[in-house]
Amino acid sequence: MQAVIISIGDELLGGVSVDTNSAYLSRRLAERGIVTVRHETVGDDAGRIAVAIARAADEAEVVVVTGGLGPTPDDLTRKALAAAMGVELVEDARSTERISAYFERIGRQMKPSNLNQAMIPAGAEAIDNDFGTAPGIAAHLGGARVFVLPGPPNEMTGMFERKVTGRLPSAGVIVRKNLHAFGTGESDIGERIADLMARDANPKALPAGRQVGTTAKGGIISIRIAASGAAVGEADALAEKTADEVRRRLGEIIFGQDDQTLPSVVASALKAAGLTLAVAESCTGGMIARMITDTPGASEYFLGGVVSYANSAKVAMLGVRADLLEAHGAVSEQVAAAMAEGARENFGSDFGLSVTGIAGPTGGSADKPVGLVYIALTGPGGSTVHRHIFSGARNIIRRRAALTALNHLRLALRSL
Amino acid sequence: MQAVIISIGDELLGGVSVDTNSAYLSRRLAERGIVTVRHETVGDDAGRIAVAIARAADEAEVVVVTGGLGPTPDDLTRKALAAAMGVELVEDARSTERISAYFERIGRQMKPSNLNQAMIPAGAEAIDNDFGTAPGIAAHLGGARVFVLPGPPNEMTGMFERKVTGRLPSAGVIVRKNLHAFGTGESDIGERIADLMARDANPKALPAGRQVGTTAKGGIISIRIAASGAAVGEADALAEKTADEVRRRLGEIIFGQDDQTLPSVVASALKAAGLTLAVAESCTGGMIARMITDTPGASEYFLGGVVSYANSAKVAMLGVRADLLEAHGAVSEQVAAAMAEGARENFGSDFGLSVTGIAGPTGGSADKPVGLVYIALTGPGGSTVHRHIFSGARNIIRRRAALTALNHLRLALRSL
Repeated sequence: MQAVIISIGDELLGGVSVDTNSAYLSRRLAERGIVTVRHETVGDDAGRIAVAIARAADEAEVVVVTGGLGPTPDDLTRKALAAAMGVELVEDARSTERISAYFERIGRQMKPSNLNQAMIPAGAEAIDNDFGTAPGIAAHLGGARVFVLPGPPNEMTGMFERKVTGRLPSAGVIVRKNLHAFGTGESDIGERIADLMARDANPKALPAGRQVGTTAKGGIISIRIAASGAAVGEADALAEKTADEVRRRLGEIIFGQDDQTLPSVVASALKAAGLTLAVAESCTGGMIARMITDTPGASEYFLGGVVSYANSAKVAMLGVRADLLEAHGAVSEQVAAAMAEGARENFGSDFGLSVTGIAGPTGGSADKPVGLVYIALTGPGGSTVHRHIFSGARNIIRRRAALTALNHLRLALRSL
Repeated sequence: MQAVIISIGDELLGGVSVDTNSAYLSRRLAERGIVTVRHETVGDDAGRIAVAIARAADEAEVVVVTGGLGPTPDDLTRKALAAAMGVELVEDARSTERISAYFERIGRQMKPSNLNQAMIPAGAEAIDNDFGTAPGIAAHLGGARVFVLPGPPNEMTGMFERKVTGRLPSAGVIVRKNLHAFGTGESDIGERIADLMARDANPKALPAGRQVGTTAKGGIISIRIAASGAAVGEADALAEKTADEVRRRLGEIIFGQDDQTLPSVVASALKAAGLTLAVAESCTGGMIARMITDTPGASEYFLGGVVSYANSAKVAMLGVRADLLEAHGAVSEQVAAAMAEGARENFGSDFGLSVTGIAGPTGGSADKPVGLVYIALTGPGGSTVHRHIFSGARNIIRRRAALTALNHLRLALRSL
């Protein structure tokens, strides 16, 4: 079963607002086995809205439209739906009453324009709105069920949960899992699981299809797994079997799944091991500390850090010897190791993790190019220094360096 | 002149990711007088992508497509564009070279699949990607200019700015300026410039309209000014006149405009004054240091910082007296002041800036609720401690505290 989601509004097409409704609706529909095949955004233009609705009803069994139900003249979704259905707008008496009661409740005078909101296409059904004035609309168009909901997310989501999900046709179940990997490229991962990603493996092929895809974001590669079945158990088993196969092939580069992040996985591992961490950051400038402290309760395992941006700070705050800086430069294996040691000693932590590098855009040389980063880790399992060359803009290099440092710590924790 | 924007990806239709590219592109196109009439999202399906591109090229002069240019088998945009154009994919020799050079630069082995990315439709032109491996594509289809860009926002935006804007057709001029304010609410600002925000002031009313609006994001209120004219000079003069009026009414809460951020403004002021900074962060956990070091060249004025998450770190790294911590607690005026002093002394900087507070969600009490934050500043103009109570989720409180600290420093630098 397929769906098309349409969002309405000049503010979306102008880029003033980002459409988050469509992603939300796609997730909710997917949970019920309904696959979204297209999102479309059109402006406050009755003709264009009518064309979009008619086209969507031609191609999918479920059409969800959000926005354009306000009381002002630029709210044209009601009129456009009526045009697409080839009927007139008629007053829905229950909605008129509810809108009047709403204004009485909030003690504000109703404008005549608010009653426009009680007009719905003949033959359609109003959907009660408990969060605002605009009722939604449920209608049939060709073979499709069409649901129209207000644009503000707080009204839309509440109405969808309470009033629309019960009216949706049912079509099996799709279960999704996302595995997250770090430390190699999307193309490398793609080749290692190419057969699983083959297009004929299709979750739409009920009762037991599956689909595997990849997405790269900020250095993290996510392997998206979707599996379908007649019931949750069946779909979940297929998804889990596929996830196991992906884990088997990719091994330790998989660091987590679904809501887990690299910092949250490292946090859990430190907590489970009862070990503490301190960091010493140069080019990442506080990014690692910030990532770790995003999670509440970080004080259990994170003692703190030094952002040693100036060389003098490396000496004063981390006890890096001035002659090491002199002989090898701030971006060197030796200084990285001394920073990690200094953090561990001065904070009294189990692990010391340090990063020193050249984030650019300037400051590089033939010998030490922009993107060169040393990461040192010292802890219960010994001491290591890793040399990396990252590419991209300054903040990409910084972020990649911070994540790579956390990943070295993750791998060290695994092998304790 | 009209545009259609198409985004590609199963992760968008599955609701796993929210499409922010289309809103960004709409804003950028609007600045050049190009009106976006439709956004559409389709999945990783060559047939559907080809239909969407062909339909868009029928209805608009400019079509921008993002996503589906990766190296894996589910990246089908290249193939779909070729199908829509009725041509074959051919290898772009320059792109092959650039991709090979990219892998050589980062010292990673290139996979054969990466060279798929150098295949573009015959007759089309590759757009260099300085941020990743996938080249973009510029093509003609019917009467439309079609631009295809990678999906990751950091690659897409950089390529659009550098390589696409110069190729766009031109249509009248709209000049936009954004003034940024910090330290009061959006409704307060709205009341002080209500007359400028009146709806009849419409930038679409060429040749001399203007529009003023506000947007709040992460505590920063931006006042968006758009002015139109037949030529840049005329539109710019009207925009600047409006900006001057907004500045006059809002005074020192305006901290910058356009690409300026609170950290970048503070950075410029420190640089201009020839003064240096060190920070001591507790609840912000490195956020201030990270914000400051986002800007290249920060080593000129930023010596470093301590993330003193544990009390022991406040004592060991910042010389905060244990009896102060004992008597007043870590979240107190006295400890904030001692942290700022400690940072200034230990790093040898002109300014010491500190933050200590309770970011939540737990750890609050009746006396010291979640959201309580002390910010201390010590420097050439003397020493101050500010007490704030912020509301919202953990990361909102952290971000608000970090920005407020930078804002105190900004105001102190103004009055030197």
